[in-house]
Amino acid sequence: MDEHEVGAFVPGERLRRSGALDGPLQGLTFAVKDLFDVAGVVTGYGNPDWARTHAPATATAPAVQALLDAGATLAGKTVTVELAYGLTGENVWYGTPINPAAPDRFPGGSSCGSAAAVAAGLVDFALGSDTGGSVRIPASYCGIWGIRPSWGAVSLAGARPLAPSFDTVGWFARDAATLHRAGAVLLLPDLPGPALSGALLKPQDAWMNAAPATVRALQPVLNEVEVLLGPALTVSVAPEGLDNVYEHFRAVQAEEAWASLGDWVAATEPAFGPGVGERFAAARTLDPADAASGRRFRRVMAARLRALLGGGAVMVCPTSPVPAPLLGAPPSEQQAVREATIAGTALAGMAGLCEVTIPGARVEGAPVGLSLIAAPGRDRALLDLAQRVSARLT
Amino acid sequence: MDEHEVGAFVPGERLRRSGALDGPLQGLTFAVKDLFDVAGVVTGYGNPDWARTHAPATATAPAVQALLDAGATLAGKTVTVELAYGLTGENVWYGTPINPAAPDRFPGGSSCGSAAAVAAGLVDFALGSDTGGSVRIPASYCGIWGIRPSWGAVSLAGARPLAPSFDTVGWFARDAATLHRAGAVLLLPDLPGPALSGALLKPQDAWMNAAPATVRALQPVLNEVEVLLGPALTVSVAPEGLDNVYEHFRAVQAEEAWASLGDWVAATEPAFGPGVGERFAAARTLDPADAASGRRFRRVMAARLRALLGGGAVMVCPTSPVPAPLLGAPPSEQQAVREATIAGTALAGMAGLCEVTIPGARVEGAPVGLSLIAAPGRDRALLDLAQRVSARLT
Repeated sequence: MDEHEVGAFVPGERLRRSGALDGPLQGLTFAVKDLFDVAGVVTGYGNPDWARTHAPATATAPAVQALLDAGATLAGKTVTVELAYGLTGENVWYGTPINPAAPDRFPGGSSCGSAAAVAAGLVDFALGSDTGGSVRIPASYCGIWGIRPSWGAVSLAGARPLAPSFDTVGWFARDAATLHRAGAVLLLPDLPGPALSGALLKPQDAWMNAAPATVRALQPVLNEVEVLLGPALTVSVAPEGLDNVYEHFRAVQAEEAWASLGDWVAATEPAFGPGVGERFAAARTLDPADAASGRRFRRVMAARLRALLGGGAVMVCPTSPVPAPLLGAPPSEQQAVREATIAGTALAGMAGLCEVTIPGARVEGAPVGLSLIAAPGRDRALLDLAQRVSARLT
Repeated sequence: MDEHEVGAFVPGERLRRSGALDGPLQGLTFAVKDLFDVAGVVTGYGNPDWARTHAPATATAPAVQALLDAGATLAGKTVTVELAYGLTGENVWYGTPINPAAPDRFPGGSSCGSAAAVAAGLVDFALGSDTGGSVRIPASYCGIWGIRPSWGAVSLAGARPLAPSFDTVGWFARDAATLHRAGAVLLLPDLPGPALSGALLKPQDAWMNAAPATVRALQPVLNEVEVLLGPALTVSVAPEGLDNVYEHFRAVQAEEAWASLGDWVAATEPAFGPGVGERFAAARTLDPADAASGRRFRRVMAARLRALLGGGAVMVCPTSPVPAPLLGAPPSEQQAVREATIAGTALAGMAGLCEVTIPGARVEGAPVGLSLIAAPGRDRALLDLAQRVSARLT
């Protein structure tokens, strides 16, 4: 598929910046989601009114600069869901990137263009951001590797915020080795902690939340993980119900999104595509009691998940409960998928966990990923483990 | 000292917001540094051009809202160093708050007004932010308790950035119990980890960096910490030299500050007071090679410090090498103090450590603090330990 068909890059003149002449990422090309600044270029954040009201960036985001310094070459900025507030990957202004692995389906978002560019082979890896699943979901939908790292593991300087206490810089690659190479440059050192060789935990809530076809499709990949870590132990992580996880996450994310972007939205009253406008309207009128109970619930979940994983355990679950929705799926179906999906992806965000999604399974011909989740600060160990799983899959 | 003499609050009409009718912070009053949003009020960020170019905030920062929800009453916004980029606490536009503990000296910054308000007894506690020492230093200078928590432990939504990979929400109180009460509301649960009952480490680099009078003055407080944790073990944390720590921190902070605030500075060309303008000018023209080597050095320091503290050790060192500079100290002396100070405070920022500063010592009649530093994510355990130290001091 050629790059014009994919539509991964922001329309207009293609941004290019050569990397340093040597370094550990020599020879690799990458793209960045259009919420990272590159000096001299307007960061569009997926929305024409945002682009119109912002001048070209004066500086390059340090995470992007670190990749250039390590020898990788920047090959373009990629389409994002408007203000990163959506999971399907739809962008009515710049075009929804094609899902190269399932062209009749959404690519997933909000880092849709970065996922599409990697899946189509247009670049070796690509930066995205993940607040509520915005790297993990497009990776799952497009059949590639993706990581949501721990809070603070990669600098967010020069990146637009959505919900700061959930926001992370993540990235995509077609193979675990490249995911790992980029991580070696981007990530701070791990926190000390037990090796990720202990218990493998299978959160039954997340597995029961997945479609039976997804569960069946992921079994062979899960088997290989079990060869490495031993048989998975079933554990319940949300006895309150995953629907409660979704509702509380939604409220806290909305409170933070409005605290971060409300000034601009209120001053500009931008035109938004379907879904995004509704989410900002809901954030604007959020019941403060919902935000307060969301913050309380989040603390409960954080304590629980950190205790479960603090001893070196790894959690394994479907990255998304179903493959990407078909293009043109009715809004009600898209919303139902969104709620079921976030109920699972919210776990890592609530507790600051790191998560890598592994490709390799298909449902109705479309990809779904299997996620490995570890305690905060264990990103490098998790990428090591992902490489070991990868070696077994090939 | 009455509140007009202190000058801790932002000039103009005093902001007040009543807290919820019940909750764990019932009966307490607090103030917030004027880089946190409160709905309906312009966040001034210490600079008249910033205030002029920003509309009233549409939302209240979730950290502030959480305190209101817990029953505390907001009693005002406090003066900050312009764009939080300074350590003396000077603000030529809104007045430098008085240091209630040493009125002939600077209050310390950038969270100068919050520290002054607490030290003068105008509020029970106050929010600040700490990037390179902006809570710890004014706490040390004003003779009060202060905490810089781990990354991600408190939401930064609705707070203005300075250098995102270092930025944290911290707070001040006159006693360890109040510091702890606010923490119980603000902080996420700790990461699991060994109890903070193991080795007490005394980084000789930081101790040798402190003035002999500071070292002598802190000895009685250190003795009480040693009663709880055993005799301190001397350790070298920066064989490269603390001056290198300062230089590398300065470069990475400058890169991030320009990535975060350069757009506004370049578009507005604001008037800045002494020091702040020079720092932004230096950030604007930073040699990219300095930023790159700073990022590399930071990774080395993070790995080292996390390994030292990951087993439950606690590091103890002077919060500031000297007490607050005298008002009117020549700029060259202020800069020398700044460099020596950041060489120590940068350690926690580089590695995402949490740090509590304990008051109780005086040099030439002015306060200096003793810091306890723990691994990332051990904030609540550190506040518990601080309370135990406090019980021995009274």
